[in-house]
Amino acid sequence: MRPHDRSPDQLRPVRITRGFTIHAEGSVLIEFGDTRVLCTASVEEKVPPHKRGSGEGWVTAEYGMLPRATHTRGDREAARGKQSGRTQEIQRLIGRSLRAVFDLKRLGERTLTIDCDVLQADGGTRTAAITGAFVAAQDAVSLLVARGKLAASPITGPVAAVSVGIVEGQPLLDLEYVEDVACDTDMNVVMTGAGHYVEVQGTAEGVAFTRAEMDELLRLAEKGIAELVGLQQRALAQPLERRAA
Amino acid sequence: MRPHDRSPDQLRPVRITRGFTIHAEGSVLIEFGDTRVLCTASVEEKVPPHKRGSGEGWVTAEYGMLPRATHTRGDREAARGKQSGRTQEIQRLIGRSLRAVFDLKRLGERTLTIDCDVLQADGGTRTAAITGAFVAAQDAVSLLVARGKLAASPITGPVAAVSVGIVEGQPLLDLEYVEDVACDTDMNVVMTGAGHYVEVQGTAEGVAFTRAEMDELLRLAEKGIAELVGLQQRALAQPLERRAA
Amino acid sequence: MRPHDRSPDQLRPVRITRGFTIHAEGSVLIEFGDTRVLCTASVEEKVPPHKRGSGEGWVTAEYGMLPRATHTRGDREAARGKQSGRTQEIQRLIGRSLRAVFDLKRLGERTLTIDCDVLQADGGTRTAAITGAFVAAQDAVSLLVARGKLAASPITGPVAAVSVGIVEGQPLLDLEYVEDVACDTDMNVVMTGAGHYVEVQGTAEGVAFTRAEMDELLRLAEKGIAELVGLQQRALAQPLERRAA
Amino acid sequence: MRPHDRSPDQLRPVRITRGFTIHAEGSVLIEFGDTRVLCTASVEEKVPPHKRGSGEGWVTAEYGMLPRATHTRGDREAARGKQSGRTQEIQRLIGRSLRAVFDLKRLGERTLTIDCDVLQADGGTRTAAITGAFVAAQDAVSLLVARGKLAASPITGPVAAVSVGIVEGQPLLDLEYVEDVACDTDMNVVMTGAGHYVEVQGTAEGVAFTRAEMDELLRLAEKGIAELVGLQQRALAQPLERRAA
Amino acid sequence: MRPHDRSPDQLRPVRITRGFTIHAEGSVLIEFGDTRVLCTASVEEKVPPHKRGSGEGWVTAEYGMLPRATHTRGDREAARGKQSGRTQEIQRLIGRSLRAVFDLKRLGERTLTIDCDVLQADGGTRTAAITGAFVAAQDAVSLLVARGKLAASPITGPVAAVSVGIVEGQPLLDLEYVEDVACDTDMNVVMTGAGHYVEVQGTAEGVAFTRAEMDELLRLAEKGIAELVGLQQRALAQPLERRAA
Amino acid sequence: MRPHDRSPDQLRPVRITRGFTIHAEGSVLIEFGDTRVLCTASVEEKVPPHKRGSGEGWVTAEYGMLPRATHTRGDREAARGKQSGRTQEIQRLIGRSLRAVFDLKRLGERTLTIDCDVLQADGGTRTAAITGAFVAAQDAVSLLVARGKLAASPITGPVAAVSVGIVEGQPLLDLEYVEDVACDTDMNVVMTGAGHYVEVQGTAEGVAFTRAEMDELLRLAEKGIAELVGLQQRALAQPLERRAA
Repeated sequence: MRPHDRSPDQLRPVRITRGFTIHAEGSVLIEFGDTRVLCTASVEEKVPPHKRGSGEGWVTAEYGMLPRATHTRGDREAARGKQSGRTQEIQRLIGRSLRAVFDLKRLGERTLTIDCDVLQADGGTRTAAITGAFVAAQDAVSLLVARGKLAASPITGPVAAVSVGIVEGQPLLDLEYVEDVACDTDMNVVMTGAGHYVEVQGTAEGVAFTRAEMDELLRLAEKGIAELVGLQQRALAQPLERRAA
Repeated sequence: MRPHDRSPDQLRPVRITRGFTIHAEGSVLIEFGDTRVLCTASVEEKVPPHKRGSGEGWVTAEYGMLPRATHTRGDREAARGKQSGRTQEIQRLIGRSLRAVFDLKRLGERTLTIDCDVLQADGGTRTAAITGAFVAAQDAVSLLVARGKLAASPITGPVAAVSVGIVEGQPLLDLEYVEDVACDTDMNVVMTGAGHYVEVQGTAEGVAFTRAEMDELLRLAEKGIAELVGLQQRALAQPLERRAA
Repeated sequence: MRPHDRSPDQLRPVRITRGFTIHAEGSVLIEFGDTRVLCTASVEEKVPPHKRGSGEGWVTAEYGMLPRATHTRGDREAARGKQSGRTQEIQRLIGRSLRAVFDLKRLGERTLTIDCDVLQADGGTRTAAITGAFVAAQDAVSLLVARGKLAASPITGPVAAVSVGIVEGQPLLDLEYVEDVACDTDMNVVMTGAGHYVEVQGTAEGVAFTRAEMDELLRLAEKGIAELVGLQQRALAQPLERRAA
Repeated sequence: MRPHDRSPDQLRPVRITRGFTIHAEGSVLIEFGDTRVLCTASVEEKVPPHKRGSGEGWVTAEYGMLPRATHTRGDREAARGKQSGRTQEIQRLIGRSLRAVFDLKRLGERTLTIDCDVLQADGGTRTAAITGAFVAAQDAVSLLVARGKLAASPITGPVAAVSVGIVEGQPLLDLEYVEDVACDTDMNVVMTGAGHYVEVQGTAEGVAFTRAEMDELLRLAEKGIAELVGLQQRALAQPLERRAA
Repeated sequence: MRPHDRSPDQLRPVRITRGFTIHAEGSVLIEFGDTRVLCTASVEEKVPPHKRGSGEGWVTAEYGMLPRATHTRGDREAARGKQSGRTQEIQRLIGRSLRAVFDLKRLGERTLTIDCDVLQADGGTRTAAITGAFVAAQDAVSLLVARGKLAASPITGPVAAVSVGIVEGQPLLDLEYVEDVACDTDMNVVMTGAGHYVEVQGTAEGVAFTRAEMDELLRLAEKGIAELVGLQQRALAQPLERRAA
Repeated sequence: MRPHDRSPDQLRPVRITRGFTIHAEGSVLIEFGDTRVLCTASVEEKVPPHKRGSGEGWVTAEYGMLPRATHTRGDREAARGKQSGRTQEIQRLIGRSLRAVFDLKRLGERTLTIDCDVLQADGGTRTAAITGAFVAAQDAVSLLVARGKLAASPITGPVAAVSVGIVEGQPLLDLEYVEDVACDTDMNVVMTGAGHYVEVQGTAEGVAFTRAEMDELLRLAEKGIAELVGLQQRALAQPLERRAA
C-alpha cells in the first residue's frame, strides 16, 4: 500500500494559498502533501537583450531549495557560488512550461519572473512549482489588467504538471519522496488545460521501460493534471484581497 | 506618528511559530510585523577543520533573502554566483551572536548550522533572524538531549536582538522599512537574557550621533530585548509536537 | 521536401570512425550528416566520493562544443568561467543514458568518463553524442577485458538515441539544424537495443502536442534507433587497430 | 603590564607619511606601532550607476592584506578568486566612515576610491586604515581644489578610528595583536573631529559585556580619537611636495 | 636516435587540411606528427571596447585542449570554471603572433578570432597552433576580399612557429612529447616569412643554457620555420572548395 | 636622450632594503628607479600534492599589483574574482626563475613561497621582482640554516633579471615606463650569476626584430644582470638585524 492509504492513481492533498507574501504581483504557496513551494511572480518593465525592441515580452523562472528543505542539510548554492545542474534543469523546465501558455506579443515589452523556492521537500518539487507558478502568474497578469497596463490577458490557458513513476512494477501518480527513491522509472509530465502535452520527461532510473508502461504512465498523468487544473481554477475563483504593500 | 499607531518604544507584533517545517531539528518562523524569517537549525555530526580533534563543537549561520522578499525583486545570489558583502556581514553576525550563548565544549564535536531565510522583508531582518535562530537552536538542542546525544544543554542562556534608530530626531525601537529608509542613525543590538551586550553595531547614515543619543538608543534596545526574551520563553514553554519526518 | 531529398522517416548518413585519436581507451568520431562529435572514453582507477568503498564503479559524461562548431561563434565556456544550463543538461543526459546499460558492480571501483566534444554542429548533437559514446565505451571496456582488468563486460546491451520532431505538421526523424529551428515539437529519445526506453524528452516549442502526435513521434524514433543500433554493431564488428600511444 | 610599557589609555606610536607613492592623488603610509597600512586616494571622473545623473559624487573604499603581512602566510584573495567576508566587512566600514565627512553634492559627479592595503599587521588594521584614509582623501581633495576642479572642499571635518577592548578585565586603548587575541570584548569606534559617533561596533568574543564596561570603552575611544585627529591635523599642516609623476 | 628515425634538425611530418569544418570563415586542421590542432578563424563585425571608434580592427586567439587529447585525462577547464595560467599564456602568445603580421587599420573595425583547439597532443601544440592559425586567418581574409568587404589584404606576410630544445646535450628541432619531457632547455620561436623574430621564449627546465647553445637553437628554429612557411604557402596555393553552410 | 640622462646601457638607480617587514622569513623592498616591489619569502613545512612523499621541496611565487601602483587606478584582482593572464604569466616566470637556482632535494619537504607585490610601477616590475625575490629567498634560507632546519643551503647561485628593448631603433637597458610604451621590441632576460640563461622572452610589439638586434639586446642584458648580481651580493653582505616578531 502507498503511504497515507493513497490509491495508485490518487494525488496527494493539494493546497493552494494565494497572497502568501505581500510584495510580489503574484504570490502562491502550493503544497502537494508535505512538499511546499513558494511561487512569486514579479513584473519588471524591461526585457532581456534578445527581446529588446521586439515588441514582445519574456517569461522566465528561477528555482531554489532552502538548505534544510530536505531530510539532511544541503549546501546553500549562493555560498557555494554556483547553481547545480539539477537546479538549472528545473528552472529551465519551469520557464518553458509557463511560456507555453503565454502570448509574448500580448504581454508587451515586460518580463514576468517566477521564483519558485522550495520551503519543504517531499518529492515532486518541480511539478508543484509549475502548478503553483501558473497561479502566481495568473494573479500577476490580473493585476496588470486591473491597473490598465494590459488590455487583455496574454495567458492562453492553464498549465499544470505532475510526476508519475513505476515502483516495484506498479505505475503510480504523484510520487512522494520514499516512492521517488524506490522507483525504476520517473516521468514528469506538463500539460495544458486542453489536455495537450507541453513537456514529457521520462527517465529509467533502473531498468528501461516498455511502451506499455509508458502508455499507462501517460494515462495516470493525464488524470492527475486534469484534477490539478480543476484545483487551480477553484483557487483562482476566490477573491484575492491584496495587502497595500 | 509611527505606522500602526506604534509608540516610539513599542515593538511590532511578534509571532514565533515552532515546527514550521518538518525535517530540521529546529524550525521556527519568526515574524516582526511584516518581516518574516524562517530559521532552521541543523545538526551534523562533524566539525569544520579548525575544530577537528578539539573536543569542541561549532555553531554557525547562513543567511539569505528570497529574491522577491522585498518591494522590488533583487538578484538571486545563487544565480549571480556570489553572496553580497551585506549577506556575509549578517550571517557572520548571527553566528557570533549564537556562539555567545553556547558552551562549545559541552556541545561536543558536532556542528549546529542555523539557516535564516527571509521570506518577506520589512526592516529588521537580521534582528528577527537572531531572535528566531535562538528558538530554533533551543529546539535542536532539546532534541539532542531527548535522544541522549547530550547529557546537558550547552546553551548558557537566551539571546535576542533588536534594531533602534533615530528618525527626524526621535529615537525609535524596532524600525520597520519606511523608518529604516528615513533614519539618520541605525543601531543593531544583541543582548543576553541577563541584560549584557553581545553586539552593538551603530552606524550614522546621515549626521553623526552624540553620546546622549547613543544612551537613549541603548535604553530602548534594552527594553525591547527584555520583551523579546520573554516572548522566546513563552514560545518555548509550549509543547512541540514533532512530525515523524 | 526535406533537405538532401530525405524522406520523413529517414536518418541522415551516419559515419562512425573508431580510433579517431590515439590516447583514449575508446575514441570515436560520429557523424550524423554534418553534425560531428568526438567521443572519447577514459578509464581511471578511482571513483567519486559517493562510490568509494562501495565496490561499484561509475560512468559519467562531459559535453562541450567548440566555439565555432556553429554558424556564428559562441562564447568559449572555459573563458566565460562556467558551463551553460544547456551544457549541463546534455552531459547529465549522456551520463544517465550510458549508465542505463552498465552494471556498475561488474565495472569494479573505476570510473569511465565519456567526453563528447562537438567539432561541427548541424542539429542532433546530443543524440549523436549518446550514440557515439556507446561505441567509445564499448572499445574502452574491450580493452579492459583484453588487458585482464575485467573478467566480463559490465555492458548489458547497446544504447542509442535520436531526435524526432514535428515541422509544419509533419513528424520527422533525425532533425537537422534548419528543421530544428522550425519545429513545433522536439523530442529526444534514448532506447536500448531491446527496444525499451531509457529517456524520453519531448518539448513543445510552439503549440502543445497531442497524444496522437506523440505516438507517431515515438514510432519514428523506434525505427531510427533500431537502425542506429545496427550501425553501431556493424562498426564494432570491424577490427580496431590501436596505435601504440 | 602592556607590551612596550604602554599604559591602558595610551596609543601606540603613530606615524603618518604623506606622498608615500607618486601616482595617486593622495598616498599615505600610516603606522600604528607595527601595523602599517598604505592608503591611496584615486579620483576618477565618473560615478557608479546608482549616482549617474544625480549631480552627486561617490566615495568608496577597498581593503586588502598582503599575504605575508601576518605572522603566518594567508591565502592571496586574488588567487582564491574571492574576497573573504572579513575583507568585505572592513571595506564597507571604511567607505561608510569616509562618506560621513563628505558632502557628495559638493564633490560633483566623480568618484574617490580609497585603497587600504595592509603591508604589515599587528592589530587594529581597520582603524589605522580609516585614520590614514582620511589624510589621503584630504590630499586628493586639496589637489582637486588646487587644480580648479573643485571650488570648495566637500569635506565637512576630520574622521578617525581606534579599537578598544577588555583584556583580563582591564579596558585598553588601541589593542595590538597579542592583546586582540586575548580580549573578551573588542570594539571599533569611528568618530568625527567634533566628537560625534560615526560607527560603534562592539563584539563580545568571550563573555558578554556590561553597560559599565561599554561606558569605560567609549571613554577610552573618545580620548584616543581626539589624539588621532590631532595627529592627522599636524601631518596635514606640513607642506606636501608632489613628485611630477 | 630520435623516434621515427628523425635527424636532429628534421621536422615531424606536417599536414595542413584546409576547410576542415564548414561554418568558420577559415578552418584548418594542422598536424605536426601526432599533434593535431583545429584552428578556426571567425570574423565578427565588431571590436572590443579599446578599439571602438578607432577605425582599427582586432585579432585575438583562444586556446583549449580537449580533456583526453593527452595521455591521461585532464580536467575540462569549462567544468573547473577557469582557464589555467598555461592556457592563458598560450592564447596570448598566439594572438600576439598573428597581430605581428596584421595591419589592423587595413582590417577595419572588425574582429578576427582564432580558436585553436587541440584534438590530440604530442608536444608542440602552441607552435602547431600558430602555424595553423596563420593559414586559417589567410582563408578568412581571402573570403572577406572575395566578398568585397576588404579592398586589400591586411596581412603583411606569413608567420610560423616551431619549438627547439636541448635533450641530453643535443639541440633538436620540433620536440615531440617524449623529448619535451626529457629536455633541459625548451624554446619556442615565432618568425615571419622574412626571417625576423616575432617571439623568442626560451626556458631552462633543468640547467641554465649558454649563449652558444642559444645560438645553435636559434639556427635550428630558423631552418624549421623556413620549411613551415613553405608548407603553409604550398597548402594555400591549392584551391579551397567552400561548402555552402 | 633617456630620462634622467641615462646612457643606453645604464641601469636605473637600484635600492635593496632587507628586513622591510617583520613577519616573513625574508622580506625585501627592491627599487629599480621608481619601480618598487615588496618581495617576501615565506617558509611552510608542507608541499603541494605533486611533491608529497618525494623528499623534495617546492619553490613558488605569487605576484600582485596594488590598484594604484600605476598612473591610473586598475581593478583590484581580488574584487574582480580572478587574476589576469598577465599576472599569471608573471608569477609563473618568477617561480621558474627561482627554481632554476634551487636544489629542491636539499630544500627538503617544505615550500618557499615568494610574494611579489608592486607598490609602485614604472616599468620592469617583473625583472625587479625576480631580482628582489632572490634576496628574500636567500634571507629565508639563511634563517633555516641558522635555526638548524637545513644542514646546507639548497641555493646553487644567484639569479637576477632585467628588461631590454629597442626604442626608435636604439637598444636600451632596463626600460622605464615611458620607454616601455614606446618600444618596438621588449625582451626580459633572466640569468644566473655564472652568466647562463634561465629565461629569454622577447616580443616584437611593433615590427619584427632581426638577429643582429637580438644579439645587441642580449649583450646589454648580460651587462645589466652582472651588475644586478653584484648589487644583490653587496646587499646580502650586510648584517641583517631581525626583529623579534
